[in-house]
Amino acid sequence: MELWYTEKQTENHGITTKISKTLHSEQTDYQKLDIIETEQFGTMLVLDGMVMTTDIDEFVYHEMITHVALNTHPNPQRVLVVGGGDGGAIREIVKHSSVQEAILAEIDQRVIDTSIEYLPEIASALTGNPRVKLMVGDGIKFIRDHQNRFDVIIVDSTEPIGPAEGLFAKSFYEELYGALKEDGIMVAQTESPWFNQDLIKRVFRDIKSLFAITRLYTVSIPTYPSGLWSFTIGSKKYDPLNVSEAEIAELSTKYYTKELHKAAFVLPKFVEELLKD
Amino acid sequence: MELWYTEKQTENHGITTKISKTLHSEQTDYQKLDIIETEQFGTMLVLDGMVMTTDIDEFVYHEMITHVALNTHPNPQRVLVVGGGDGGAIREIVKHSSVQEAILAEIDQRVIDTSIEYLPEIASALTGNPRVKLMVGDGIKFIRDHQNRFDVIIVDSTEPIGPAEGLFAKSFYEELYGALKEDGIMVAQTESPWFNQDLIKRVFRDIKSLFAITRLYTVSIPTYPSGLWSFTIGSKKYDPLNVSEAEIAELSTKYYTKELHKAAFVLPKFVEELLKD
Repeated sequence: MELWYTEKQTENHGITTKISKTLHSEQTDYQKLDIIETEQFGTMLVLDGMVMTTDIDEFVYHEMITHVALNTHPNPQRVLVVGGGDGGAIREIVKHSSVQEAILAEIDQRVIDTSIEYLPEIASALTGNPRVKLMVGDGIKFIRDHQNRFDVIIVDSTEPIGPAEGLFAKSFYEELYGALKEDGIMVAQTESPWFNQDLIKRVFRDIKSLFAITRLYTVSIPTYPSGLWSFTIGSKKYDPLNVSEAEIAELSTKYYTKELHKAAFVLPKFVEELLKD
Repeated sequence: MELWYTEKQTENHGITTKISKTLHSEQTDYQKLDIIETEQFGTMLVLDGMVMTTDIDEFVYHEMITHVALNTHPNPQRVLVVGGGDGGAIREIVKHSSVQEAILAEIDQRVIDTSIEYLPEIASALTGNPRVKLMVGDGIKFIRDHQNRFDVIIVDSTEPIGPAEGLFAKSFYEELYGALKEDGIMVAQTESPWFNQDLIKRVFRDIKSLFAITRLYTVSIPTYPSGLWSFTIGSKKYDPLNVSEAEIAELSTKYYTKELHKAAFVLPKFVEELLKD
């Protein structure tokens, strides 16, 4: 018997991938959580029926949601991740020696626990790292309670339905703005330029109305809808396109490079058009 | 009843997409040819069970397989497309006013005929354009018979199994080299950097052994395996990275831009690594 996991990424389109076994399955207080072993992408974390991360392609998302902003800020010391309970973003953040404190604000303790158990390479920085602090609870409330505190905030959310819906609201970006220091930078995952054009337009406009510098960049993630994914940066002072390549520290990566830091912002024309007023 | 078309893009992974109806289905002399109407991507051409092109995302492939090479050559007059019976590459080529002759060498007349009937926007340049010539037959033989003739040759092939297998052989690139003028450029579609790494390495090495300048670039195509696709350029004289953006003519496009002309060559680190000796 062959088992295939099929995700409807839109009403009319999706991916299907062969499973060798289901490793774990539960309904947490917040969402359905499944961990499956796939033939193509290794271990896969699925929340509410949507692929969050896999062994094989996780490096793209985790490197690209972190290093662009962290290498734009000249001295990132305090960094917050909202969501991201698998720990992949935290693992990349602590590669930066300037970082003194990397806080994970994840609402679902079960995502953290099962990632540590089943995705140990992704979650490797969640245990035994004195610079990492885990805060299990509502990220929105956490941000409200920590104003003017962070150099970089990373919004590593699930899709804009279910527990993460509030992480795509303009009121949330306003709170984020307040939680950043006067030269702080935020970055959020903002879905597919092929399938989520209205969301990208709205989020870009909302972030642009608050921050001095707003930029969108894209990356290739095979297990995410359409294979093309976007991130949006809001920055109070530093422009990711003004970074000197010579000043970017060497990092051990599989996707991010100094050259790609800027090239990722060069958009296909139809994506450029989404961002025009 | 819902109908879904599922393509196994590898042994263990694929896409699935909702169909409103099957428009056409036949076994030609060379391959199985299906044209289906999908909810997500409009009309879709499928050869031997693999998506070749769709109404919605075809512009990426057709713009990016043509304009990079054509805008690298300072005066492309004679251009050959090997394969590409849907006509999308030809439609983009004739946007360049320098082009006097755009020849399509397609082995399967039925691909041309059904594209004209069911994909009229893609095939629009295949009828009634005095600069376009259709040559139905073996592209390898055609190239052998037309040495030292073309400014640009575009290898718009199907996958490297079935009728297109010979279009990925080193001996074919040698014949291509001979069919190009002394400052000619070739470009070939070279599959997914996620799923076809051995092929990309071999083809890059083979082309590099023949041409003065060899470069690989990538694009986002949602209906192709992994969503990330590569093209490899072999050039006798002109480097696509040395083109002056100011000299690139304005073209009506939805993906290609002057800025992306160069940025598309900035590769994720794991793709860069594939190209090292």
